[in-house]
Amino acid sequence: MPDRYVLVVAGGRGERFWPWSRPERPKQLLPLALDGRTLLAATFERALRLVPADRVIVMTASDLVRDVGRECPGATVVGEPLQRNTGPAIAAAAAWVKGDAAFAVMWADHLIDDVAAFTSDLERAFELAEREPVLVTFGFPASRPDVNFGYIQRGERFGEHAHRVAAFKEKPDRARAEAWLASGDALWNAGIFAWRRSVFMDALEASRPELARVFRGFHFDGTGPGFERRLSEVFPPLQSISVDHAVLEHATNAVVMVASFDWDDLGSWSAWARRQPRDERGNVRHGTTEVLDCDRCVVVGEGGTAAAIGLRDMVVVHAHGATLACPIDQSEQVRRVSEAVRARGGS
Amino acid sequence: MPDRYVLVVAGGRGERFWPWSRPERPKQLLPLALDGRTLLAATFERALRLVPADRVIVMTASDLVRDVGRECPGATVVGEPLQRNTGPAIAAAAAWVKGDAAFAVMWADHLIDDVAAFTSDLERAFELAEREPVLVTFGFPASRPDVNFGYIQRGERFGEHAHRVAAFKEKPDRARAEAWLASGDALWNAGIFAWRRSVFMDALEASRPELARVFRGFHFDGTGPGFERRLSEVFPPLQSISVDHAVLEHATNAVVMVASFDWDDLGSWSAWARRQPRDERGNVRHGTTEVLDCDRCVVVGEGGTAAAIGLRDMVVVHAHGATLACPIDQSEQVRRVSEAVRARGGS
Repeated sequence: MPDRYVLVVAGGRGERFWPWSRPERPKQLLPLALDGRTLLAATFERALRLVPADRVIVMTASDLVRDVGRECPGATVVGEPLQRNTGPAIAAAAAWVKGDAAFAVMWADHLIDDVAAFTSDLERAFELAEREPVLVTFGFPASRPDVNFGYIQRGERFGEHAHRVAAFKEKPDRARAEAWLASGDALWNAGIFAWRRSVFMDALEASRPELARVFRGFHFDGTGPGFERRLSEVFPPLQSISVDHAVLEHATNAVVMVASFDWDDLGSWSAWARRQPRDERGNVRHGTTEVLDCDRCVVVGEGGTAAAIGLRDMVVVHAHGATLACPIDQSEQVRRVSEAVRARGGS
Repeated sequence: MPDRYVLVVAGGRGERFWPWSRPERPKQLLPLALDGRTLLAATFERALRLVPADRVIVMTASDLVRDVGRECPGATVVGEPLQRNTGPAIAAAAAWVKGDAAFAVMWADHLIDDVAAFTSDLERAFELAEREPVLVTFGFPASRPDVNFGYIQRGERFGEHAHRVAAFKEKPDRARAEAWLASGDALWNAGIFAWRRSVFMDALEASRPELARVFRGFHFDGTGPGFERRLSEVFPPLQSISVDHAVLEHATNAVVMVASFDWDDLGSWSAWARRQPRDERGNVRHGTTEVLDCDRCVVVGEGGTAAAIGLRDMVVVHAHGATLACPIDQSEQVRRVSEAVRARGGS
């Protein structure tokens, strides 16, 4: 087996699950996996089906390195000195990959149930990336007109398991998302990738030569902290940009495999609740709760009691010295509150 | 002016405002008065319109003596070793009253706006109690069929400002409360009284001789702590009983004055909210809050942020490491939750 690497992107600050998630304990560190582990621990376990621990690099925020490392024993955990989005993060991680090995990119805060399907899909992606000079992406058949994802348009067939990417489409408006869904051919771009180091760096060179230049001579095989010192030298002047914008949307050699594994990015309280066990009245309860005459609610009490009385389809959360109450179908608005709280200087 | 005394009953444990109120910080110690003071401080100020501070005795729970004392400088604050309801508490306080002076009984957790009307009504009650051997009570014209109050039925006129009490009626069911309200003559019994020591003790002797016996020889003019030691000797075997059950319902010499002052016992979050300033969408906000797209809600954040999104007519409270969310018209159910939390051993 050729050397393979996995990059786990664990940079999120977790605004969607406020107040359960906080900057110092973002979504990937919450016990949101179905077995009660953190999403990061579950992600790391999936990575270990593909590569040994010492071939896993986890990019996270510098203040989270310790907590992240605890969930990923044996991995190299790198704290980014500043958040510069996935473009610079993946370019930096590429420097850590030895020779021209292939590496996969996955997200620490995704929920994936079918680990066997995930493993065999990723094996195929690695094989394809090692065989062909392509950027392998995964597409998920869209099941609803979601405006929170980018979409992928398939082109012609490419080998046994993939298609060329005809186009990456940015997050659409509602009407466009519905039209794509109706077409029956809409694929969500989940940001799960595989490619060889040289193929990625060449694509970066073609679209963002100034970014490629920074990381071209960036070979590094030391420790996480040493790596971090290098990053703190080069990150500050960099533009914050996603790998989609920096590379994929400009690439002519992107291919897409349709994922056979399930996937959920748990983008809101309601997404999490969809997968949790419920009581006889349909309530999801976690932690210390008092639930009286409620139906289909999500009630979370961490570090204190969350009491809900006479509610329907609501989210009620007590955690980290704060309270959230909102209708479950508006739980995506939580982000606005967590931003306001942060802007106010609260936590 | 003859010696007069005021007994402030401050024994409540504050389950209705959970989690803002807690056993260690019950309703009377919350800043629920209209000017942001505690209800107890406002009550004490009303008492001082009637008598000097050293003629005020405050009966409370023994663990609240310090906090209560801070709100009532100069008063004698007595911690009851056990809760035995108002019958024993008032009988004990009577022992502290010198000679055959009159004393008024008032509650630390009532909200009364019109202090001038309150003062002149109580002056009249004192005068009547000093002149006649009667138990003076106050009745409040019922404005809704409330099932949380006892009612008073007026009898024949008694002097210029009072009527004899034809009957005390216990808390009614809904149908009965509506019938009384429709009669146009329903008076709520708010538990505000005035009487001479001897008149009260004689009435107690007639209805509860065993209780009267305990306190008959109980003259005491020492300090609060000394008084408490005496109480801890006599309280334990006593039956828990209200002064209404122990005395008033059996008395033949009770009279009622119709109060000219407003009065609210703030029995729920909704009662409190009725009197608070509101934002342009009708929300009552207190403390640290984030309120997004809400109408007519009560949002309280004490010691942390309470965030409410997309709610109508709800109560959302963050306080003392707990969270409450419920429709405002069900806020009387809060008691059930606070009892459950206490039963579980939480606070």
